[in-house]
Amino acid sequence: MRTGTARWTHGAGSEPGPAPRRVLIIGTGLIGTSIALALRDRGTRVLLADRDPAAARLAARLGAGTVAPAVPDEPADLAVLAVPPPAVPAALLDAQKSGAARAYTDVAGVKEVVLAEAAELGCDMAAFVGGHPLGGRERSGPLAARRSLFRGRPWVLCPTTESGADAVACVTGLAAACGAVPVTMDAAEHDRAVALISHAPHVVASAMAARFLPAPARTLSLTGRGARDVTRIAAGDPALWFGILRGNALPIADVIDDVARDLARTAAALRAAPGAGPGDGGAARAVIDLLARGEAGHGRIRVPGLDETNADVEEELDGSNAQ
Amino acid sequence: MRTGTARWTHGAGSEPGPAPRRVLIIGTGLIGTSIALALRDRGTRVLLADRDPAAARLAARLGAGTVAPAVPDEPADLAVLAVPPPAVPAALLDAQKSGAARAYTDVAGVKEVVLAEAAELGCDMAAFVGGHPLGGRERSGPLAARRSLFRGRPWVLCPTTESGADAVACVTGLAAACGAVPVTMDAAEHDRAVALISHAPHVVASAMAARFLPAPARTLSLTGRGARDVTRIAAGDPALWFGILRGNALPIADVIDDVARDLARTAAALRAAPGAGPGDGGAARAVIDLLARGEAGHGRIRVPGLDETNADVEEELDGSNAQ
Repeated sequence: MRTGTARWTHGAGSEPGPAPRRVLIIGTGLIGTSIALALRDRGTRVLLADRDPAAARLAARLGAGTVAPAVPDEPADLAVLAVPPPAVPAALLDAQKSGAARAYTDVAGVKEVVLAEAAELGCDMAAFVGGHPLGGRERSGPLAARRSLFRGRPWVLCPTTESGADAVACVTGLAAACGAVPVTMDAAEHDRAVALISHAPHVVASAMAARFLPAPARTLSLTGRGARDVTRIAAGDPALWFGILRGNALPIADVIDDVARDLARTAAALRAAPGAGPGDGGAARAVIDLLARGEAGHGRIRVPGLDETNADVEEELDGSNAQ
Repeated sequence: MRTGTARWTHGAGSEPGPAPRRVLIIGTGLIGTSIALALRDRGTRVLLADRDPAAARLAARLGAGTVAPAVPDEPADLAVLAVPPPAVPAALLDAQKSGAARAYTDVAGVKEVVLAEAAELGCDMAAFVGGHPLGGRERSGPLAARRSLFRGRPWVLCPTTESGADAVACVTGLAAACGAVPVTMDAAEHDRAVALISHAPHVVASAMAARFLPAPARTLSLTGRGARDVTRIAAGDPALWFGILRGNALPIADVIDDVARDLARTAAALRAAPGAGPGDGGAARAVIDLLARGEAGHGRIRVPGLDETNADVEEELDGSNAQ
């Protein structure tokens, strides 16, 4: 991410622009409302729109801005399409047809398919810069929104050769205004990255958590924080997540195939040598090798945007892992 | 777990005995030292022994008790074998030969293999009651020990038909004295349970974390708390964990084979229908089905022994999950 930041700092003509002064949020769920709240803290004028007018009114009551007029009086500096990934291209086309804003971005967790479909629909790609703020919660809806959701976290921007410099500067300004760290990436690199660090872990957590469904209550009563953490993100909404996964299907399939292969190999090794000791050859070595690769792989993870308090708190929570 | 408690409360002659007054801890690592600290809080006399004399002295300096004399002057009420699972049977035999205590228990995360090997070695099985306190941390060693490690958590006891009533009451008293909730289970039921809620999740976390090993740093810089939590328990020591896994190999293999099958099926579904919508038939349904089973399975998990503070804290930590 420092790499990404450095690119913004030193890349000629790609410094973050000033925070946009007038922003239209289309889709007042968790992400859209959190962006709106962060912008309101800086005095930005925020207009709120949602397919469900009640959701927009609720976000407004939460202090996220004012409900947008049915017919825009003047175009906003920036429109943020905070709708589910599959809905982005059509929403972008509609917004551009109505002249809602001068620049447009989205918050979808997949980028290649969104850019391709938007171009196919005939959207103005010079005014659109795809974005992905790396913040989220299991819970959804405006009531789960937090102004601090993106603070210190990466916010990936995927400008294309068609993207106008003004639009890039405006969207980068949005990310900076929300306290996030703008990171620029090619859409394909982004999609491979999130397949590994977000989408595949979600599927893996679901596959593990699915085992608890038929288990006796007495068995589950022994569960420790370890198993609960392994499966925590499986609590996400299946329909929403399918919308994300299907837009990044092949990179995700590659990762979970590798995980499935490692697990099948490990199961075979365990069956081959139930009493195997480290000296007992191949079977034992296969299991220890996986555990060692897992330990080393986990050790490479750093989560930017963890403030001191949370770090301490995690220290506290680093326990109750049944063995 | 309530079931287990109820059994202790109402099962004739199986009420927890009084806290043992003189306890010998053999193995002053994380678990042994944590038990010792909890007992010292109640004024129990605790003797500390470890293969590594420096570890026993360190535990003593931490206030866990006094270093045991090389030759026991009088037998303790109870000896706790807090050594790695594969080392328990031999350690039990040695302790019983030296007349170290009147009753014996262990803390191994696997029970059938320990009981079988101990019986094979000719240990006095009337004086031994296998135990498994469901508390732990990624870190190990006396310095990681906490007196509160077992408070409110289940502590499984696996008495056999050979177990003497005095030994059962004494070991139950130990669990209660540490603030844990004694749960009695058949060894096979225990091993199947921990394979599902502890061992298999560890292997699954390792298989996911292993994917991070060859990943570009720029990719990992996008990691959120979701992926970090999914792989957190993969930070455990590979050698220690292999010792646990190999003692419960077949029940674990059954669970991770099921996980591998679900993952391979999901990968195939994703490849079959990259653009699949919920209406696009089998492929989409297979993915959504897994996500839904995972959400429902996760929803069944309750972690006993989480105090209010931690629950609040978790609420706070329930975020930053990249999507």
